[in-house]
Amino acid sequence: MAGVAEWENVNLEVLRKKMEEFAKERNWEKYHMPRNLLLAMVGEVGELSEIFQWKGEVPKGLQNWEEEEKVHLGEELSDVLLYLIQLSNVCGVDLGKAALRKIGLNATKYPSKNHHQ
Amino acid sequence: MAGVAEWENVNLEVLRKKMEEFAKERNWEKYHMPRNLLLAMVGEVGELSEIFQWKGEVPKGLQNWEEEEKVHLGEELSDVLLYLIQLSNVCGVDLGKAALRKIGLNATKYPSKNHHQ
Amino acid sequence: MAGVAEWENVNLEVLRKKMEEFAKERNWEKYHMPRNLLLAMVGEVGELSEIFQWKGEVPKGLQNWEEEEKVHLGEELSDVLLYLIQLSNVCGVDLGKAALRKIGLNATKYPSKNHHQ
Amino acid sequence: MAGVAEWENVNLEVLRKKMEEFAKERNWEKYHMPRNLLLAMVGEVGELSEIFQWKGEVPKGLQNWEEEEKVHLGEELSDVLLYLIQLSNVCGVDLGKAALRKIGLNATKYPSKNHHQ
Repeated sequence: MAGVAEWENVNLEVLRKKMEEFAKERNWEKYHMPRNLLLAMVGEVGELSEIFQWKGEVPKGLQNWEEEEKVHLGEELSDVLLYLIQLSNVCGVDLGKAALRKIGLNATKYPSKNHHQ
Repeated sequence: MAGVAEWENVNLEVLRKKMEEFAKERNWEKYHMPRNLLLAMVGEVGELSEIFQWKGEVPKGLQNWEEEEKVHLGEELSDVLLYLIQLSNVCGVDLGKAALRKIGLNATKYPSKNHHQ
Repeated sequence: MAGVAEWENVNLEVLRKKMEEFAKERNWEKYHMPRNLLLAMVGEVGELSEIFQWKGEVPKGLQNWEEEEKVHLGEELSDVLLYLIQLSNVCGVDLGKAALRKIGLNATKYPSKNHHQ
Repeated sequence: MAGVAEWENVNLEVLRKKMEEFAKERNWEKYHMPRNLLLAMVGEVGELSEIFQWKGEVPKGLQNWEEEEKVHLGEELSDVLLYLIQLSNVCGVDLGKAALRKIGLNATKYPSKNHHQ
């Protein structure tokens, strides 16, 4: 139960602040130009793809994957997320707000049949 | 103020649930296999890269960008995020938890000099 | 037969020269900085991925694909190739030579069992 | 001079054949499904991006890069090329022919001003 409560606090703003502090403490802000962060994210997308590259079709839930491999997957998914948040941040984009707005646009573009019943 | 309160509620779990419902209502769950979602995300990373491709070095804050272009950027950043969340979801990875864990690993790997003062 | 002869003349140097002239005639050389071309290539990799994104496992030979879709695939594969050649060119890398060298390195790294019989 | 002659022989068909034999000798053909090769290529695009990620704007010709780094760059550019050729091959796409056709399409889409004088 404590786990659930903690998880629900993982909002994008918390992660954004943590990453901003992380860079500041290491004097890395000068490296965090938009295109640097974008290319770093592409690098992580590449590492994520490497996990899936020789597997053929992968079932939902990743049955048969080793626990170690799942942990590694979580790390690569996180790396993409953390660079995405930092890229949004240096571009002055409120990623949470933008994501909610985009879900709304998608709902208009692809109306749900259920909603039309 | 209302804006801030709303924004702080954009946690990853809210977005995950919204996307899961979105797919369910449209009967799209059958398409949401891990590698399909991964390739869809790579497609969105490509669209994000196209925004930056002919610009040379881009300053933090995107001075001189048209408002329309910034809105478009927010949409592409969101598309990457939404596919990343869905990919994590079908893989059974708790992305928020994984991201907090990864930040901890990064802090160990790259100790802050400030922390050692 | 004429087709075969022509095809065998499609060496990387021919494509490199064609692309260099293409950019020169349009006064596009100023845009062809290494990171611009890299991001343009990432954009094309995204478009290539979009072709495969909702298909699940795809068989060799692409049985059941529409002719139109195969033509589109050829265009996206070409776009990746043409940006890759241009990126190599502005970086001063002889891509053909580098590729032959890399095949040699791969052969050393992954010795063929047949060769050891 | 011998170098030039050799280089001009690096046509796409030579590389395609070499990679096909390479896979055959190692019994790797079963892994070379289209989406596996596509994801492997995305992985290499990621490694290529990592070389450029923290550099800010990079000048043509890569002045100031260490020789070692240029060699590494040639390897990553080659890895992208070799997977692209293999992907085209298993899809039944004649990449050289497709690339020449695409250059023609581009010339029609973006007419050269010089040609109109």
